[in-house]
Amino acid sequence: MEERKKKTCRVHFGPSGLKIEVARGTVLLDAAHKAGLYLSSICGGDGYCGKCKVVVDEGQSQTRPTGLLTPDEVRENVVLACQTRILSDLRVTVPSSHALETSSILIDSDAHRFSELAGDEHAAVFACDPLVQRLYLEMAPPNVQDHTADHERLYTTIREKVEAPIMQTGFRVLQKLPHVFQQADYKVTVTIGRRGGTTEVIEVEGGNHARRNFAVAVDLGTTTVVAHLIDMTTATTIDTEATYNSQVNFGEDYIRRIIYTEENDASDEMQNRIVKDINSLVVTLAVRQKIDLQEINTIVCAGNTAMLHFLLNLDARRIRREPYVASASFVPPIRAAEVGVQINKRGLLYCLPNVAAYVGSDIVGGVLATGLFAKPGISLFADIGTNGEIVLGGSDWLVCASSSAGPAFEGSGIRHGMRAARGAIERFSFDVDSQIRFETIGGSPAAGLCGSGLLDVLAECYTHGVIDRTGRFVVNGDPRLTDGEDGRQFQIVPPRDGHQEIAVTQADIDNLLRSKAGVFAAIRVLMEATQTQADNLEAVYLAGGFGNFLDVRHAVTVGMLPDVPLEKIRFVGNTAIAGAKMALLSREALDRAESIAASMTYFDLMSYPGYMEEFIRAKFLPHTDLSLFPSVQEARTDRSRRPSRPIVESRRRGRPVAQEENTQIGRV
Amino acid sequence: MEERKKKTCRVHFGPSGLKIEVARGTVLLDAAHKAGLYLSSICGGDGYCGKCKVVVDEGQSQTRPTGLLTPDEVRENVVLACQTRILSDLRVTVPSSHALETSSILIDSDAHRFSELAGDEHAAVFACDPLVQRLYLEMAPPNVQDHTADHERLYTTIREKVEAPIMQTGFRVLQKLPHVFQQADYKVTVTIGRRGGTTEVIEVEGGNHARRNFAVAVDLGTTTVVAHLIDMTTATTIDTEATYNSQVNFGEDYIRRIIYTEENDASDEMQNRIVKDINSLVVTLAVRQKIDLQEINTIVCAGNTAMLHFLLNLDARRIRREPYVASASFVPPIRAAEVGVQINKRGLLYCLPNVAAYVGSDIVGGVLATGLFAKPGISLFADIGTNGEIVLGGSDWLVCASSSAGPAFEGSGIRHGMRAARGAIERFSFDVDSQIRFETIGGSPAAGLCGSGLLDVLAECYTHGVIDRTGRFVVNGDPRLTDGEDGRQFQIVPPRDGHQEIAVTQADIDNLLRSKAGVFAAIRVLMEATQTQADNLEAVYLAGGFGNFLDVRHAVTVGMLPDVPLEKIRFVGNTAIAGAKMALLSREALDRAESIAASMTYFDLMSYPGYMEEFIRAKFLPHTDLSLFPSVQEARTDRSRRPSRPIVESRRRGRPVAQEENTQIGRV
Repeated sequence: MEERKKKTCRVHFGPSGLKIEVARGTVLLDAAHKAGLYLSSICGGDGYCGKCKVVVDEGQSQTRPTGLLTPDEVRENVVLACQTRILSDLRVTVPSSHALETSSILIDSDAHRFSELAGDEHAAVFACDPLVQRLYLEMAPPNVQDHTADHERLYTTIREKVEAPIMQTGFRVLQKLPHVFQQADYKVTVTIGRRGGTTEVIEVEGGNHARRNFAVAVDLGTTTVVAHLIDMTTATTIDTEATYNSQVNFGEDYIRRIIYTEENDASDEMQNRIVKDINSLVVTLAVRQKIDLQEINTIVCAGNTAMLHFLLNLDARRIRREPYVASASFVPPIRAAEVGVQINKRGLLYCLPNVAAYVGSDIVGGVLATGLFAKPGISLFADIGTNGEIVLGGSDWLVCASSSAGPAFEGSGIRHGMRAARGAIERFSFDVDSQIRFETIGGSPAAGLCGSGLLDVLAECYTHGVIDRTGRFVVNGDPRLTDGEDGRQFQIVPPRDGHQEIAVTQADIDNLLRSKAGVFAAIRVLMEATQTQADNLEAVYLAGGFGNFLDVRHAVTVGMLPDVPLEKIRFVGNTAIAGAKMALLSREALDRAESIAASMTYFDLMSYPGYMEEFIRAKFLPHTDLSLFPSVQEARTDRSRRPSRPIVESRRRGRPVAQEENTQIGRV
Repeated sequence: MEERKKKTCRVHFGPSGLKIEVARGTVLLDAAHKAGLYLSSICGGDGYCGKCKVVVDEGQSQTRPTGLLTPDEVRENVVLACQTRILSDLRVTVPSSHALETSSILIDSDAHRFSELAGDEHAAVFACDPLVQRLYLEMAPPNVQDHTADHERLYTTIREKVEAPIMQTGFRVLQKLPHVFQQADYKVTVTIGRRGGTTEVIEVEGGNHARRNFAVAVDLGTTTVVAHLIDMTTATTIDTEATYNSQVNFGEDYIRRIIYTEENDASDEMQNRIVKDINSLVVTLAVRQKIDLQEINTIVCAGNTAMLHFLLNLDARRIRREPYVASASFVPPIRAAEVGVQINKRGLLYCLPNVAAYVGSDIVGGVLATGLFAKPGISLFADIGTNGEIVLGGSDWLVCASSSAGPAFEGSGIRHGMRAARGAIERFSFDVDSQIRFETIGGSPAAGLCGSGLLDVLAECYTHGVIDRTGRFVVNGDPRLTDGEDGRQFQIVPPRDGHQEIAVTQADIDNLLRSKAGVFAAIRVLMEATQTQADNLEAVYLAGGFGNFLDVRHAVTVGMLPDVPLEKIRFVGNTAIAGAKMALLSREALDRAESIAASMTYFDLMSYPGYMEEFIRAKFLPHTDLSLFPSVQEARTDRSRRPSRPIVESRRRGRPVAQEENTQIGRV
């Protein structure tokens, strides 16, 4: 067959060696997805994030012109995979910056990053009463004096051991029950699970298997999926595992994924991806711990509202459209097999309840795990990731909001931003000689900047006068302030020896400021609405992967978190999974999660009158109102020995303008 | 192919014309079943009931010798189908005595026979609150002020209309809900059903269909299956239909069917049969009333414990073995589709609860429908059919028992016994000239005797001195007392003009006495155990098909029912279906049925110390203890003008012997 007549083309992706045969004309990004290859794609294939760069080494392709590639890149046959159609067999090289192509070592280290730090101190509040229990029952067989039917005998015996006023039995279990009872001489293991206010007889087996009862708690993150394997009989976590959410192919944030789903009618595929991720985690844990999948009877999921909609294949479209409606906030327990999760075929899947379209069950899990709902006084809970969700309150009331200011601290929209993966700069500072110091994950050569590194850069550049309070680069002759492809930039690693340059651009700084402003404006709205002063905050809980690793001093310095004494700020780790585990082990905790979700007042920031103004003010470093950040002011005063100059707000063109501070720092 | 090598044989059954091809060597009864042909078979194919007689007109067969055929029958090629193997193609004639071969006219008339007479006077006790309801909801769509999720919006709206503290939603409904809501602009019809203490959202549809909500109540009788179609929005019965239980092929009583099931591993087939019967009734009703099967959302079944086990394919084997254990007495509602019942695919199937292996949900339905559970004082409820189930009590307590004395009054074990079908003698009496008077069903030529006719024969023959108090034919020269094939017999219709003889044999009388003694002994045990005197009975409720048509005076005369004033005895008809309908229309009634079943004390007569003695005494006419039947004694005294002679009991050879009464009746 002649080349020009070929209808399908083979594509070889290096260095992984993955191959795929697709129809001629297929978009290269789609071909990569089909091949099972992860390519960064924040915009979901719309051609404007510029993340899906690959090199076409051999073969014919057609690519649309784009301003997202430098002339050098174009010369080197770099293309945006989403803008390129395959016209013949191709050999393509995927740059190593697509971090997820790398091996499972990172995933393992990620599991540790995402394991929770908090939780145990609060777990004791709830009575241990697992959602799914296995009981060994030795019943007396029927006799002439007692011919109680098998089904009623079972109920009576169960009720002697646990409280179960309303019980249910599935038809298939009911049918097998008499046979099991007779074969096992009425010595059986019954698996019972809580469904709403009822107790379901999930399974009945002969003999004693009560000690083999395992469960999985899952944090369904937009980026990462984390699973903990729990021994339900000892209430202990016996192993953890994490993987990247393979839906990232369809967009790095969930709004993109919803759009992709809608445009491509891809809700089944979206569900399949996340279910596959969960299954791979479950299988990995089970194999490693020598547990049969049939011995895993329960799975509890926490995640943002969109992720739970994807998992359950619920209509997620309205999450991104006013008035931002979820299909369900309280999802009744279902059979895990109904969505394809491969635990015991009759095992139950629970989802912690959501509060609203943008405040998901991961946040409810956080409030549960930190015990915020029971604390006297007022505390703050913040989970800063792709979005920033904020909860304020305590035992009397709880309010919450979600900042949609973008995932800059996840590395998105940042020229050299990347995930917290090998080679990411996670710590950055200027030393006493104003020389750059940084640490990378794994000690590898620097490949980019992850969230905590970016926060350090922002804070240090501000503190050291590299940028002013509006985030503009200051003209001060620092040779690291160079002109790059995107204009002025602060060079962290110069290009040399074939190593790529790592720099932070003005656009990067603006993005970071928007993100931090989004978080702080959300906090401000909640505090103002509830007339809460920063001085009155009992504690600030920082949850999530980013929260675990950021320099909290810097978070205050840049004005992302309110100015409270640092000892009040606590890293609480992955509270989503901690909350899921608490629910797994205590139905009282699940009940509490439901009452938390039902009682929390949600503030829709987009329709909240004062929000935009708060956001604009918070885009300054640390804020237009310096009186909100006395410690920052004090530190800078100490450093500069000069009083800071007041911000003059101007409403011209709708934006406040701050006079640049005249900081006196030589070459920082 | 030569005849002797043929491996399969064709069998033609006349006069129906049904044909079947089966393996050579197949038992003829099995071939008939496969052809869909009903053949009477009380013993389930064991060869000792002698009911499955057919004539082999052509072809070779091999039949075992049997004493159940007369020499004449053997000459005429009559065989027992269950004892005959097919060796070649056969032409077989099925005699017309296999009543069920006849057309649906009888079935229709049976529906009327089995329609309930009672119920309405008591139905008002319960609040109308159907088990499955359809509600039309006009919800406000979400807006900026109210972004409640769809699922919670639904729950909130439902709870404004009905009490539903614990709600559940199946996963498939949850998934479709947002699409339906949006398409129908939040104007939907929701179908909700009660499952245990919870309310399930069964279905959600756009638009208003609340007025189309139908249900079926079913009485699963061993012999007959009756269905009533109910309009749930008006709480009225709109049509009724009945059919024979097609499991009869496997034995006329359910014990035989359990044995058949066990020996042939035929529980699936047994279930298929009864489900097919139900479906044929449902389809007939739906077609006649122009109702879509999808509009039937509920089915409630009442029946004996074995029938419900067959329907649900639950292990029924131990029902017939000591200690007589059911697999389940309280069956949770299931999806009707799970057993193959063809109503709405998400519609629910409820079973009224059973009390014990031999007191089923038909009896619970009877106690519910008669209101016995709420009556002051003590009343008696009796359902006399294949078994005789007895309930005694009122609002304070309820006791029950089941007599296993055999289905003689259903025509089984009676030489010329038959069902209440066309041609059955249903009324029998001697006129003033001692001439026989009888009426047949449909006015057809007499074909046999059904239950009410047999009771009349027994009572009239006793009253007129044809039999003595032990049931023996009296030697008095009556020419109708002849010697037949089975010995002495009372000839009702002599053989002439090609018409078959109809007679009652000594064995028949003995069978009838055993049956009536079984019923009365059960009543006596319950009355003695509760120290109840006949004088104290407020009422006697007679339920079931036989109860509807018997001459109640005769039932007392023969000593089957206690001697109470006749006006206290009430025919209450098919209370099984009346109870099922009450439960359909009121969840309070279903709750009550469950508390009735849970609280009723069951007496296992087989292990009750005094039962056998009571049974033996009750085999006399009317009883050994005539003081229990003062009205009978008085009537006979009036008639004979002479005092009756006392019964002398003897324990020799374990049986009491009564001196024959010296009645002075000439030629009755």
